[in-house]
Amino acid sequence: MNKTIETMLNHKSIRKFKDQEIDPEIISTLVDVARHTSTSNFMQSYSIISVSDQEKKEAIAKVGNQPYIAESAHLFIMVIDQNRNMHIAKEKGQDTEVLHSFDRFLIAACDALLASQNILTAAESLGLGGVVLGSILNQADQTAEILGCPEFVFPILGIALGYPDQTPQLKPRLPQELMHFENEYPQHENLHQKLQDYDKTVHEYYDLRDANRRVDQFTKQITEGMNRKHPGRMKLLEFLQEKGFAKY
Amino acid sequence: MNKTIETMLNHKSIRKFKDQEIDPEIISTLVDVARHTSTSNFMQSYSIISVSDQEKKEAIAKVGNQPYIAESAHLFIMVIDQNRNMHIAKEKGQDTEVLHSFDRFLIAACDALLASQNILTAAESLGLGGVVLGSILNQADQTAEILGCPEFVFPILGIALGYPDQTPQLKPRLPQELMHFENEYPQHENLHQKLQDYDKTVHEYYDLRDANRRVDQFTKQITEGMNRKHPGRMKLLEFLQEKGFAKY
Repeated sequence: MNKTIETMLNHKSIRKFKDQEIDPEIISTLVDVARHTSTSNFMQSYSIISVSDQEKKEAIAKVGNQPYIAESAHLFIMVIDQNRNMHIAKEKGQDTEVLHSFDRFLIAACDALLASQNILTAAESLGLGGVVLGSILNQADQTAEILGCPEFVFPILGIALGYPDQTPQLKPRLPQELMHFENEYPQHENLHQKLQDYDKTVHEYYDLRDANRRVDQFTKQITEGMNRKHPGRMKLLEFLQEKGFAKY
Repeated sequence: MNKTIETMLNHKSIRKFKDQEIDPEIISTLVDVARHTSTSNFMQSYSIISVSDQEKKEAIAKVGNQPYIAESAHLFIMVIDQNRNMHIAKEKGQDTEVLHSFDRFLIAACDALLASQNILTAAESLGLGGVVLGSILNQADQTAEILGCPEFVFPILGIALGYPDQTPQLKPRLPQELMHFENEYPQHENLHQKLQDYDKTVHEYYDLRDANRRVDQFTKQITEGMNRKHPGRMKLLEFLQEKGFAKY
């Protein structure tokens, strides 16, 4: 065990921030940490947009239906980016058809997401707290418009950061035996029975998001979650293709 | 600056490993670190397969065309996993149609990839070295078959770990001003001119993978990379859909 691992094992999403700015040097360090993350084929197919404009922050908070996005001290939007590489190639007259392949979308998604986690862990190691915002995809078209994302740029997630003004409990996770396998993916059966203890633990977990009621058991959350079909999110592939990605 | 950030800023892909095992407790800690990573809607839609079977490691090394995969002390394959959640819901008679949406693929990809980076950083913080293996997707169907991945399980990347037996140079990355923007994605122009200095730096970088020649300039790598169309990778969307994902 060391400080790095301790930071990771203590990760809690922070959704309430003190009214305290983050030193621009820290932001620059976080971007550096992203820059040094592994990147597929050295293509560095992602970019980072820092949103400091309060109106834009509020517009993104509205997309995500999460007011705390607008109250964060710093908001990063991580974008899958094949636009920069497209321009580099086009300046040399190179055909860029391959960028329409799903492969080039996925490669760029890997780059953006690996870098995202390093930003969050680095921030937490400095005493900041934050939350990963998948909710910017509720209306990916609106998020993209707010940030002026052109062809081959797709906002994949946000990271809201600030100095924590809450101390949530550590959220209990699936036991290792149900998510770590050796050599082969297992045949699942009797999962509700195997998850009984975990369901109890989750039910006892005290969620700051709605302090008045105990959270549902994990299996109930998963089962009922199958009914969650946010209209905007059901059109993600369509939007992705509008941006040029994933045509085959 | 602290140890965590130092580890991240010093990240180098390690492709040559000492003949030294990794303590199983360390592997368990790395899985724990993954477990505590942020997960979308608490759905924990990913799993980890540790590949210890030498024949399977060699088969995966062949898919990736990277012999060092088989020589690593530990090989993690990170899989996007909606199969476990599908079974949980089906045991309750719940319809699981939504899993065919691109949204549920992307959510699971985020979970798997954020956890991947925490594993790698944690490993590096313990003196291990490793490399992220996108190459398992060269023939995603074969990788999936080797590991017995059923419906709604998609291997997204590998992480090969071991004690480093090489000391690569730190790879130079794109300067911040070309990948970190404020409030708005920029209009790119004259990128070759803006990248002149960076191109020089990359050209001077000493790559251990082919020590006999200097690496190409970044812009040249990007431009020529547009011609790289691995047949297996050009069928990724098709394969994903075969696994049930991304039908709309």
